[in-house]
Formats: sequence, C-alpha cells, structure tokens
Amino acid sequence: MAPLKSWFPIPKSSHFSLANLPFGIISTAGKPTPRAAVAIGDHCLDLQEFSSSGAFQPLGFDASVFSKPTLNDFAALGRPVHRAVRKYLQDVFAENTSIPEVLQRNKELQERSLIRRDQVTMHMPMHIGDYTDFYAGKNHAFNVGCLFRGPDNALQPNYTHLPVGYHGRASSVVVSGTPITRPNGQILENPAATPKAPTFSPCRRLDIELELGAFVCKGNAMGTNIPISEAADHIFGFVLLNDWSARDIQAWEYVPLGPFLAKNFGSTISPWVVLTDALEPFRTTGIPNETKLLPYLQEKEEKNVYDIRLQVDIIPEGKEPTTILNSNGRHLLFSFAQMLAHHTIGGCPMAPGDLLGSGTISGKEPGTEGSMLEITQGGKQAIKLNGGVERKFLEDGDTITFYGVAGTEETGLVGFGECSGKILPAPKI
Amino acid sequence: MAPLKSWFPIPKSSHFSLANLPFGIISTAGKPTPRAAVAIGDHCLDLQEFSSSGAFQPLGFDASVFSKPTLNDFAALGRPVHRAVRKYLQDVFAENTSIPEVLQRNKELQERSLIRRDQVTMHMPMHIGDYTDFYAGKNHAFNVGCLFRGPDNALQPNYTHLPVGYHGRASSVVVSGTPITRPNGQILENPAATPKAPTFSPCRRLDIELELGAFVCKGNAMGTNIPISEAADHIFGFVLLNDWSARDIQAWEYVPLGPFLAKNFGSTISPWVVLTDALEPFRTTGIPNETKLLPYLQEKEEKNVYDIRLQVDIIPEGKEPTTILNSNGRHLLFSFAQMLAHHTIGGCPMAPGDLLGSGTISGKEPGTEGSMLEITQGGKQAIKLNGGVERKFLEDGDTITFYGVAGTEETGLVGFGECSGKILPAPKI
Repeated sequence: MAPLKSWFPIPKSSHFSLANLPFGIISTAGKPTPRAAVAIGDHCLDLQEFSSSGAFQPLGFDASVFSKPTLNDFAALGRPVHRAVRKYLQDVFAENTSIPEVLQRNKELQERSLIRRDQVTMHMPMHIGDYTDFYAGKNHAFNVGCLFRGPDNALQPNYTHLPVGYHGRASSVVVSGTPITRPNGQILENPAATPKAPTFSPCRRLDIELELGAFVCKGNAMGTNIPISEAADHIFGFVLLNDWSARDIQAWEYVPLGPFLAKNFGSTISPWVVLTDALEPFRTTGIPNETKLLPYLQEKEEKNVYDIRLQVDIIPEGKEPTTILNSNGRHLLFSFAQMLAHHTIGGCPMAPGDLLGSGTISGKEPGTEGSMLEITQGGKQAIKLNGGVERKFLEDGDTITFYGVAGTEETGLVGFGECSGKILPAPKI
Repeated sequence: MAPLKSWFPIPKSSHFSLANLPFGIISTAGKPTPRAAVAIGDHCLDLQEFSSSGAFQPLGFDASVFSKPTLNDFAALGRPVHRAVRKYLQDVFAENTSIPEVLQRNKELQERSLIRRDQVTMHMPMHIGDYTDFYAGKNHAFNVGCLFRGPDNALQPNYTHLPVGYHGRASSVVVSGTPITRPNGQILENPAATPKAPTFSPCRRLDIELELGAFVCKGNAMGTNIPISEAADHIFGFVLLNDWSARDIQAWEYVPLGPFLAKNFGSTISPWVVLTDALEPFRTTGIPNETKLLPYLQEKEEKNVYDIRLQVDIIPEGKEPTTILNSNGRHLLFSFAQMLAHHTIGGCPMAPGDLLGSGTISGKEPGTEGSMLEITQGGKQAIKLNGGVERKFLEDGDTITFYGVAGTEETGLVGFGECSGKILPAPKI
C-alpha cells in the first residue's frame, strides 16, 4: 500500500495519518459550541467551519450534521456517505490533491478550520442510546474462569456457541479525560464466614478492562434482525473502551443476574471514532472457534477482527508511566458483526449511537492480559512499576491510559489516540 | 378521606378518578403531534390546548413542557411542580371548584381540550435513557430459585442484603398495545446431552413478568449518590410493566453475565404515569426483611410500598379473557426508594426518564404468582382457560393484559388502565 502523503504537516508518529481521519466532537475556548471534527496529525479539521465554505456540496449530503453536538446524525447517513466523506477529505489533504482550491490554496479557510488538537476540548462523540458489553475475549474469559472455577470449568458450555453479553449502563459512559470516582458499595470481606454478611466500603479491588467499542450507525426495527451478511454496514466505527470494574462489589452482587454496580460507576471511551473503512486494511483472523456455529452466526469473511496493537499504561500520582500490558485486537472469539447479528436475532432494536463493547481483550502470554485481575492472578502477585511502586489494583490518584494503533509509519498509522482516566477517592457516605 | 366529586362526569368504576390524574402522551387523528395529557374518567385533558389558554399561568412554571413529545421535561421540573399541577387540576375539576372560569364555565376550552380516551393514540410517556430491572419480588425469586436449585438454596446469600438488579434494554421498552414478536434464539433442547449443543428455534417458553415500573424525575451527577432520605423526591411516578421473558433462551444464555436476549425483544409499559403523590394514600408495608440492612438502605418510613391490586388476563386469539393471576404491589422486599439509593451508591448517574422495574411481583398463595413459569411450576402444570383452552406458556395470537388499581370507588380509584400486548409469530430466519 502506497503511503498517502499530504501537503499539510502530519508527524510520522501520529495516530492520525491521512490513512485514518477519525471523527470526533470538539469545542474551543473561542467557540464553546460542540461540533464535529476530523483528527489529522497534531491538528483537527473543524467540520462545521469547513462545511460552511460549501466544501462538501459536491458530495450532495446535508452537511448540517457536522454542526450537531454528537455524530449520531452523521452516522445515520450510512457507510457509503462516511466512505465518500473520508475519501474526499483524503483528496483535500493529499500532496497531489485534485481540488487544491478547497483548502490547500484557501489560507483563510485553513485559518478558520484547522485547529491544533491541544487547543480543543473533546466531548462524547455519540449520544449512546444503549450500551451492551460482550465477553468475546476468550483468553480473558478463560483466565477469569480459572480464578473462580479452575481450568476444567473455566468456560461455560454456551461460551463458544454465542457471543455472551449483557446490557451495560449508557449514562455512565464518558469520554477520555473524565475522572472516575472510586465507587462505594457492599463487599464481602470474609467470604468463608457464615452467614455471609457484607460491609460497606470503598471498592478495594478497582480494576480496568481493556476493550474495543463499536458504534452502530444503522438500526433495525423491533422484531426484525440484522443478518450477519449485512452487519458490517451497521457499524459506524470503533473506539477504545475501558470498562472500569469493581471486582469486590462484583463478586458479591453478580449472582444470579450479572454485574450491576460493579460496572456502572464509569466506562471510558477514546474521543475519536475510527471509521470501519479506516480499519479495513488491518483485518485479520481472531481466536479460532472449533464449535460449529448456528447459521445466523456464520461469517463468510474469515478475517473478521482487526490487528490493532493495544497498550495500557499506569501513572501513579506524581510518578512516571509504566506500561503494564500489551495486547492486540485480534484476541477475540467473535467479531463485532457476529455480536450484532446475535444481539438482534431475537428482534432487539438497535439505533445509531448504540455502543457494543468487545469484552476484555487478553492475549495468552504473560504481559498481554487485559485486566489487573488477570495480571496479578486475582490480586496475589503485585505488578512492579517504575520508581519502586507496586500495584495489585488501582489506587486513588492513579491514571490509566489505553493506546491502540494499527499499521506502520511507512503507510501511515491508524490509531485511536488516548483513552484515559484518573481515579478520584470515594466520597464519604 | 372524603371523595373528590367533580362537575365533569367520571364513571365510578374508572381508574382515572379525580384522586388520580395520571400523565401521558397522546395524539389524535385531527392533531397527530404527540403532546401531554391527563386522564380523567373516560376522557383526557389535552394539556397543550389547556395551557394555551393561559390556564397554568398562576402556577408560574413553563407550561411549554406540555407541548413536548415526552414527559421528560415536565418530570424534570420536580415533584413540587407535579404536586402543584395535580392539585390545581383537582381544583379545576372539583364540583365546588374555586376557579370555575378556567374550564367549568369555558365551553370553548372544554371542547378543544377534553377528548374521549377512545379517540386518542397513546405514545411512550417518557424517553427512557436507561432501564434497570430489579428482582425485589421475594416470593418470585424464591419460587424461581426453587425450580432451579431447590428450596434450601433458592435465594442467594446477597438477596436480602441488597436489591438485586441488572441493566435492561431501554430501546425495547414499548407502550401498551404494541405487538410483541416471539423471539428466535438459541435453546438447549436436551440439557442432559453431552456436549451441550443448542438448536435455533422460536422461543417455546414465552412468558410474562408482572412488575411495577418507576420513572425517575431528578437525576444525580456521576460519582455522587442519592441518599435514601431523598430518594422519593427523585421518583416521578409509576406504570405497570410486563417484562416479557423467553425462558428457554434465558436458561441457555444467562450464565455467567445474566439475562440478555431473553429480555430485550420487548418490555411493555402502561401509558399513563401515576404520580408518586397519587399513590401516597396507599402506602403499606412490604415483605418483612429480617436482615439488618446497611445504613444507606435503611428507610425511616416502614410503609414503603403500595397496596395496588394487580390482575393479569390472557385472551387467546378469538377467545374470551381469563384472569390467570391476582397479585398486589405490596409483595416486594425492597422499595423503589431503596432501589434508587442502591443504584446510585457507587456513583451511577440517573437522569429524568430512567425506568426502574420492581421485579416480578408474586404473592405466596396459589393464583398470585406473577409469571407463567411459577403458575405452571416450570411448565409442568397447564393453566385451564375459559373455553376449554390450556396454556403452559404463551402461544402466537395470545393477548396479555395487566390491570392495576388502588383505592375504592367510594373515595375514587387510582389505577393504571391497561398494559397490554399481543404475541406475533417469530419471523422465519
């Protein structure tokens, strides 16, 4: 693949090469109204300003979608429009652009619409109607299952037949940079005691979960399903997702109806939505599934997940960062297309802006596990950080940052930027 | 309590006496824009028309909330405003009204604003941001636990310490009258076979769940909690809720993360929101809880649930109705205030329009169980219906209707009207 060169300066190491062009919602000090933008190198293109010049007129869609405070209306235009806009913007910025008059030679529009990214505030890219979290990271499910039930019964009989998932809490999904308050809740200090009696406490086993998130762009009516062959057309794009988890609250509350307060005190997403098209070159095969799937989950495309390098750093208050794990987006047993086909097979209605989480993405090797629960083997083995610090779970003041990137500097990186959050102390109740 | 008599004809048997005045969203053939209304006897008062006369001006709030397509903005004004509006409307309609000029003597406004209820289409009363379903019906939890694990282990150790709940699917909550399509999905025909292999099938064990729903009117910021002493101020009002359930899909999918597709193909609510204030006279004690609760769940008010008579009818296609169960809103171990205090104790943010389900409300006696699973003892014992028909679970063409009512005809009934849905066949996949 030949690199896409630009007349506009884009650092080679940037996640936001011309091969990417992810969409987000920005505001600035001078113009506090949230509106759409595309990230490019160290800058972003304010799409409200850009479209006000009539630049999108040749594409024939209603560019007022870029003046909205979320990307939902743009997403709802469908993948052919997303594809056309991205290609058009790639041409606008290309070294040998066919339309230099649009931006390259229009200094006034450049000044109005190109903003340094360190000058913008990022907002939630989508209004999320419903959020569903899957559990498709088989290595994670196995690791956690081993901790609770031993390796022979680590995975439930249903696990390889369907993408296990549960409904999450849409209202607690926040954009990168939003602080996360340690939750209070009921925990069982002594699980062996009889009768079991919980105590009230700030969470003591606060954890991360390294996930990818997918946003829906096209819904379905209640009572109908999205066939697997069409599912990819329903996916707008992807973000990094930290599904912060309170392990001690979870252990006590989750039987029999699943995780609840352990998961709804905050879930962080990266602010730039990487379009499905931008990740096409990085399709790869996931974890092989030896189970013969029912037809509604059978995918023609074998390469149904993405080769995205994932990294998690922890920064204790006032300390330097330590990378605590490296994983990859390919460590999934089911694809997002399969998740969507399964989610709707009973007629559940999806809508633009719905968010699907992959489940925690763990590799098989030490150092690739997607949660601290796994790295520390259930809190037994401390992680050694730079500067002589140790962690079993998160402490107040810790900042966790996820990174995700596909491709090479030669052909242009396609990355997500950062997905970051700092832990604040639990409130006194 | 003296009855509230009206100059306007209200049938004694109506759920919508002057003691009630529930709020909903209507449209009519002549005016298809959804707007707010209050039910009164066989009529409803179009609040957009009514307020356009300036009738609400003495109350000093922005009455344009009644022109919105949902009640969210009205709900967000808070309980003091709901209370003032309801009291004002009780005065408007009272036999000895202090303000006869507003409506009693204003024939023109009566003609514009009073509409027969059989002439209106009801819409979703609220835009639901997030829907949470609790499991506070202890008798139901015990009955179902017995079916799965026997009476000694029927309830989990956490059950009496906290209101067990899980996140539901907001997008599949629909208003009474919306047909419900039987879901397709994975079911395990032979649970004893090894290895376990599911088949694809329309649900064969389609069930109801008799619940009450509560709408939130006032939210909380992420990272903060709603103290139990203030929780009642956060509850706008109540509806009936049928949490349709696919028992066979549920049995296969729900371990370890809880119910998913078994619950997200449709949940039906009654269209009129009965205000919290309207139910105050019917406060009663719930199921006693011998467990000492943690302070954040301790309620001053012992009468923390409502004496609401609940009834479920089934109408097979072309047949007459049979009442299959009678229950009561008091059969709950936890109150909605406790649910809300628990839901937010870890900092989960609530918003106006969020819906909380009580969990299935079963009594202890035969004939009071809130689901067919319980009545038929897991599908073993058929229910005999009028006309020689039998049912273990729901068949295509069956209509299920819930009724709920508090109070007496003497002092004026406070009821919910109907919560109804008809089963359509599963689509061919």
